[in-house]
Amino acid sequence: MNAQEALALRAAIESGDTARITAAAHSAHPADIAAELAGLEPETVSTLLRAWPSAIRAEIFGYLEPGMQHQVALHSSRAELAELFLHMSPDERADLFKQLDEAQRESFLPALAHAEREDIRTLARYPEDTAGAAMTSDYATIAPGLTATEAIAHLRQVAPDTETIYQAYVIDENRKLVGVVSLKDLIISPPDARVGDLMNRNPIFVAATAPRTEAARLISKYDLIALPVVDAEGRLVGIVTYDDAMDISEAEATADFGKVGAVEALPMGLKEAPVSLLYRKRVFWLVVLVFGNLGSGAAIAYFEDTIAAHLALVFFLPLLTASSGNAGAQSATLMVRALATGDVMLRDWATMLLRELGVAAMLGATMALAVWGIGLWRGGVEVAMLVALTMMVVVIAGSLIGIALPFLLDRFKLDPAASSAPLITSIADAIGVMVYFGLATVLLGLPHAHG
Amino acid sequence: MNAQEALALRAAIESGDTARITAAAHSAHPADIAAELAGLEPETVSTLLRAWPSAIRAEIFGYLEPGMQHQVALHSSRAELAELFLHMSPDERADLFKQLDEAQRESFLPALAHAEREDIRTLARYPEDTAGAAMTSDYATIAPGLTATEAIAHLRQVAPDTETIYQAYVIDENRKLVGVVSLKDLIISPPDARVGDLMNRNPIFVAATAPRTEAARLISKYDLIALPVVDAEGRLVGIVTYDDAMDISEAEATADFGKVGAVEALPMGLKEAPVSLLYRKRVFWLVVLVFGNLGSGAAIAYFEDTIAAHLALVFFLPLLTASSGNAGAQSATLMVRALATGDVMLRDWATMLLRELGVAAMLGATMALAVWGIGLWRGGVEVAMLVALTMMVVVIAGSLIGIALPFLLDRFKLDPAASSAPLITSIADAIGVMVYFGLATVLLGLPHAHG
Repeated sequence: MNAQEALALRAAIESGDTARITAAAHSAHPADIAAELAGLEPETVSTLLRAWPSAIRAEIFGYLEPGMQHQVALHSSRAELAELFLHMSPDERADLFKQLDEAQRESFLPALAHAEREDIRTLARYPEDTAGAAMTSDYATIAPGLTATEAIAHLRQVAPDTETIYQAYVIDENRKLVGVVSLKDLIISPPDARVGDLMNRNPIFVAATAPRTEAARLISKYDLIALPVVDAEGRLVGIVTYDDAMDISEAEATADFGKVGAVEALPMGLKEAPVSLLYRKRVFWLVVLVFGNLGSGAAIAYFEDTIAAHLALVFFLPLLTASSGNAGAQSATLMVRALATGDVMLRDWATMLLRELGVAAMLGATMALAVWGIGLWRGGVEVAMLVALTMMVVVIAGSLIGIALPFLLDRFKLDPAASSAPLITSIADAIGVMVYFGLATVLLGLPHAHG
Repeated sequence: MNAQEALALRAAIESGDTARITAAAHSAHPADIAAELAGLEPETVSTLLRAWPSAIRAEIFGYLEPGMQHQVALHSSRAELAELFLHMSPDERADLFKQLDEAQRESFLPALAHAEREDIRTLARYPEDTAGAAMTSDYATIAPGLTATEAIAHLRQVAPDTETIYQAYVIDENRKLVGVVSLKDLIISPPDARVGDLMNRNPIFVAATAPRTEAARLISKYDLIALPVVDAEGRLVGIVTYDDAMDISEAEATADFGKVGAVEALPMGLKEAPVSLLYRKRVFWLVVLVFGNLGSGAAIAYFEDTIAAHLALVFFLPLLTASSGNAGAQSATLMVRALATGDVMLRDWATMLLRELGVAAMLGATMALAVWGIGLWRGGVEVAMLVALTMMVVVIAGSLIGIALPFLLDRFKLDPAASSAPLITSIADAIGVMVYFGLATVLLGLPHAHG
């Protein structure tokens, strides 16, 4: 869709004229239509969707954000909802199903065939964020005894009902996954070659209860089009496709991104998120960090006499605490991302900590040199020594905390991404204040703190 | 590959025994082998790679990080390098080619066929980070006049030399892209249906000079297996496949992640990056931010008399400046990611700023309330009023800066991700100091600062 078509579509949607919308959306991709609808009120979207035939409507609906899907579903009649469900792909259907309340669920289940009802119940059974919850049940299975030609004929038959025919799964009589064969392999093989001989007997797979990020990671690592999902008994229960893997990776990266900035994950895009939701997702950490920063305040109060006796020292305080926090934020963001992508594992903690010590020592020395000059200029040799020494210590301390905290959280099965830049900064601030005024009290022979 | 196989492979690789490595790696995926080699010295990797036949060797090589590929290439003989190039996929070959110096390039080019030499030169012509640099030239083209059966027969023939046969591209006599047909469509159509009637005449495509992130975004948005890349004249010059799109998205997310933590992008994983490189990628921003923090120091020096007259106020300083920085870090990380994923566009700036004002006002009010209590407890009504008012102002200021800075950088064609949490924090610190002591001077009737 080019810019002009997009504008025409947007104008048509804004006019609310069904005939005009249908005309403008004639050649538009369902993803583009969904993008244009995303900014509107759910009630309006629900009305506008009626302009399309039900199959396309379900496709457009599938491209809407989960939050919007739920809202639109609430504004749809029972009959509309049931029809939408009929045309949705099984995984999207199950996701929406999970968001509905009991009354809504009951209202459309009778409209579905027995197999589809079972299917929804199976898919909806897996907890959020597992491979099982991300998978679809629309995959192609194939018997090992078929020839390549027979297998292709079979895939042709099942194509309308499967998410992909480019991978076919070979299962035994107990539905256990025994192999995978690609359509490419079937096509380039001699027509009478047997599936059992062509198939990869050692396929990559994932457990239904594994995190969905694990499924996305395997698909990305091995360049798969689809990844088979098996239950505890090794039976094939579904597949996760590459396009779902992309969505999972993007959603996880966005969630981690927010967390590193001390924002809880949003269930939708930033543009679509209501102001009240943004407030709720941000206020928790802001308030928690207030208490963290009371530590710095308390440290300052403790050293009040030291500060009073040498007020010029306060000039360097923001510089020192910020540098410590910045170094910590750097290592924390690097670590959080490396743990998320699987580049670094929990078992690497000792190596990473040791390497960080090396990097931090070099950074600390550089920063000490930089601040030495400023110290000399504003306060003389003694102050220069004090600030340089403090800088060295706090940059190393901040960096090590930044590396260690994500590891610690991971170790205790918490989310490493919770070690956000603001959290590291507030810890670093408190340490910075104590190291700085503590060293000042010792080095400059200032009066001891009260308390 | 299960954990036991991975251990056996690792042990074999560490033994350096070619026969043992070949045995252990027999059923291992090239991606797993590459992962095991990643931690070793390039020279060792270069030696170990000789254990595999050249086709598999090229595949393993393709899974190594670009930095490692370059290093291994430097440790390979001319003959080895030429053989590696013969078996690599065109896009990976071109990427490596770009990293070599003139002498190395000359040494292997004669070993390649004329068509491959031309191909490398074409692919290597596009600047880093464009769709052209990410594309491969191994795609299947097809004539519109073929029947479905003939088209499938043609795809079978070209399959060994193409990255994917699941999408075939229809071009006219000037190589202009006129349509796309999927293998699925060919298989489910009547055998004598014409490609010209089956094809999608309105395919999604990308310009070779577009950013590679645009290619990845289109593939993700439209759930494509491959995206055709065209030159300025609309001629098909390559395709970007879904697995390349995943790698691009992951690399870009990792780079943005680092930048938000004020670390320049690493050309490799955190675990593989040498200590000296990590130092170089971190020191720039740390030193730059020192000068940013001098602003806070200067503001403190300016208000030295105010501070001396009411030293207890310093207790609240870290709390107020940190809250401002935290709120700013929150909005900046949200914005940077939303701009990167395309959720928010430059044209949305007014809406986003207005919404942020709403969120920030609510957050500021909540934070003011929280700090009011602490102020009352430590300093009485006047101090409580001062800190609450300051909190309100600095949280709103920090939030707006956090939203505005990524937009501004984007507007001036700079990287929005440069508006890192540490940068926002240092700006917020300076503003916090000025607002706090400025208001204190006015509200508490403290002596004016010396100039």
